[in-house]
Amino acid sequence: MIQVVEVGLRDGLQNEKLMIPTHVKQRLVQRLINAGIKEIEVTSFVHPTWVPQLADADLLASQLHIDPGVTYRALVPNRKGLERALRTPIHEYAVFISASETHNQKNINKSIEETFPVLQEVVAEAKQHQKRVRGYVSTVFGCPYEGKVDLKQVVMICERLMDMGVYEISLGDTIGVATPNQVKEALTELLRQFSSEQLAVHFHDTRGTGLVNAYVSLECGITTLDSSLGGLGGCPYAPGATGNLATEDLIYMLDGMGIKTGINLEELCQTSHWLEEQLGKKLSSKVLRSYFQ
Amino acid sequence: MIQVVEVGLRDGLQNEKLMIPTHVKQRLVQRLINAGIKEIEVTSFVHPTWVPQLADADLLASQLHIDPGVTYRALVPNRKGLERALRTPIHEYAVFISASETHNQKNINKSIEETFPVLQEVVAEAKQHQKRVRGYVSTVFGCPYEGKVDLKQVVMICERLMDMGVYEISLGDTIGVATPNQVKEALTELLRQFSSEQLAVHFHDTRGTGLVNAYVSLECGITTLDSSLGGLGGCPYAPGATGNLATEDLIYMLDGMGIKTGINLEELCQTSHWLEEQLGKKLSSKVLRSYFQ
Repeated sequence: MIQVVEVGLRDGLQNEKLMIPTHVKQRLVQRLINAGIKEIEVTSFVHPTWVPQLADADLLASQLHIDPGVTYRALVPNRKGLERALRTPIHEYAVFISASETHNQKNINKSIEETFPVLQEVVAEAKQHQKRVRGYVSTVFGCPYEGKVDLKQVVMICERLMDMGVYEISLGDTIGVATPNQVKEALTELLRQFSSEQLAVHFHDTRGTGLVNAYVSLECGITTLDSSLGGLGGCPYAPGATGNLATEDLIYMLDGMGIKTGINLEELCQTSHWLEEQLGKKLSSKVLRSYFQ
Repeated sequence: MIQVVEVGLRDGLQNEKLMIPTHVKQRLVQRLINAGIKEIEVTSFVHPTWVPQLADADLLASQLHIDPGVTYRALVPNRKGLERALRTPIHEYAVFISASETHNQKNINKSIEETFPVLQEVVAEAKQHQKRVRGYVSTVFGCPYEGKVDLKQVVMICERLMDMGVYEISLGDTIGVATPNQVKEALTELLRQFSSEQLAVHFHDTRGTGLVNAYVSLECGITTLDSSLGGLGGCPYAPGATGNLATEDLIYMLDGMGIKTGINLEELCQTSHWLEEQLGKKLSSKVLRSYFQ
């Protein structure tokens, strides 16, 4: 069973210039669920100064119409964010760290070593509240400041996160530089230490390689893939990082490969087309464009 | 050794609304060669009524500055086209046919069965003039009118083309619907009848699967891939068929996989950025966008 984690509301909207009203986000969540999305990262409890687009995290999360078959997820950067998240019905949290020192510094304003205790505290307390925590590792396949990232460093960070008690690590190609053999090499190495259920992949399509990297990950045995409606996304602290892998493009490929996800591509495209109207701009998903020119 | 056949000047420009002056096309050919392109389809000797964008085929082909390390190719639909082509220094010709009856009818105005003798005549006469002929088969992975295309029909057409004496068949996903398993299945079947040197692949990126299909083809042993600068392309008789696989995106992946092509990605992007200025519009290659926002 392949699990698709929809991250557009978080990783996507946080990079949009336009502030989307909370009621539109609520409608978006609902439409995604109607299209068959079961895993959805709805927001981030970072400080609103850093990501004003998600400043309504508390409101949005509190007003969700919780569907029993759906897992609602949110990003939680630190203890303060955790306290906010715990007041909402969000099921599952995610902490984040970069594999490269400079990106971590720019993104979190801390060294990698300084970041661990912050995450440790979040994970420990979340678990006390019976919440599962995912770990995101950014810049796994390349850093906008440092270039290539040492795989040993990636393995070390994943080990530290696992030791803290995260149940899964999502490996991020934050700036979309990864190519298939690199993905295969990294996953082969990581799958020596971790099971395929403990790893997820999170590709950006900046250089058009998102889908082929997803394909290679499936071939390696990965069963959880992150994607973003319409290909929304980027990273404010990673210059040139445009667009996550589009959920539509991923589902089109999975459908064609006979891999069932329960997600209805037509409804998904209707949803992203509706979102395009809300954002007043075209999204980058190619499958979306094949439905709506 | 992987061979990239640049088809942007033909398959790309024939779908552009703007008529590009011959001297700009000449400059484009030269810039592509400077970037390391060795196989280049420069034009098509179809009747100008059908493809006015390539009405300057004779002029363009006659005025080429022939580089001894480069193979110049052109599409030749029939005897009349062949006579025109033979008056130019073009090295290699290509004939075309569709795998689906309706697309062939709309594209060539003949049934598949009626098309064979026309191609037979071109191939026979071209060979008398010591010219190699490639065969294009369109709609191999799906037809805009008929949907799925029977693989047996594809095999039959390829056999007929090979019997005529084409040295290579380029398998076209004309409307960009193919997914990886389908490509693997088709190539596995075709590679039972033909050697990998006799087959090329020609993907369109309409649904974002161009690159992953190219990857799967490489895995199957295919060594010749068609692509189009900037992702130019489409098909006038295939509704919704946008953009060939972009040469930049293909080269980026091949570079990352350590596969040498002799093509310089930076120079290629400079060339497509220059072409964007000539066309007055942005091209779809993601790698190009990562160089020039």
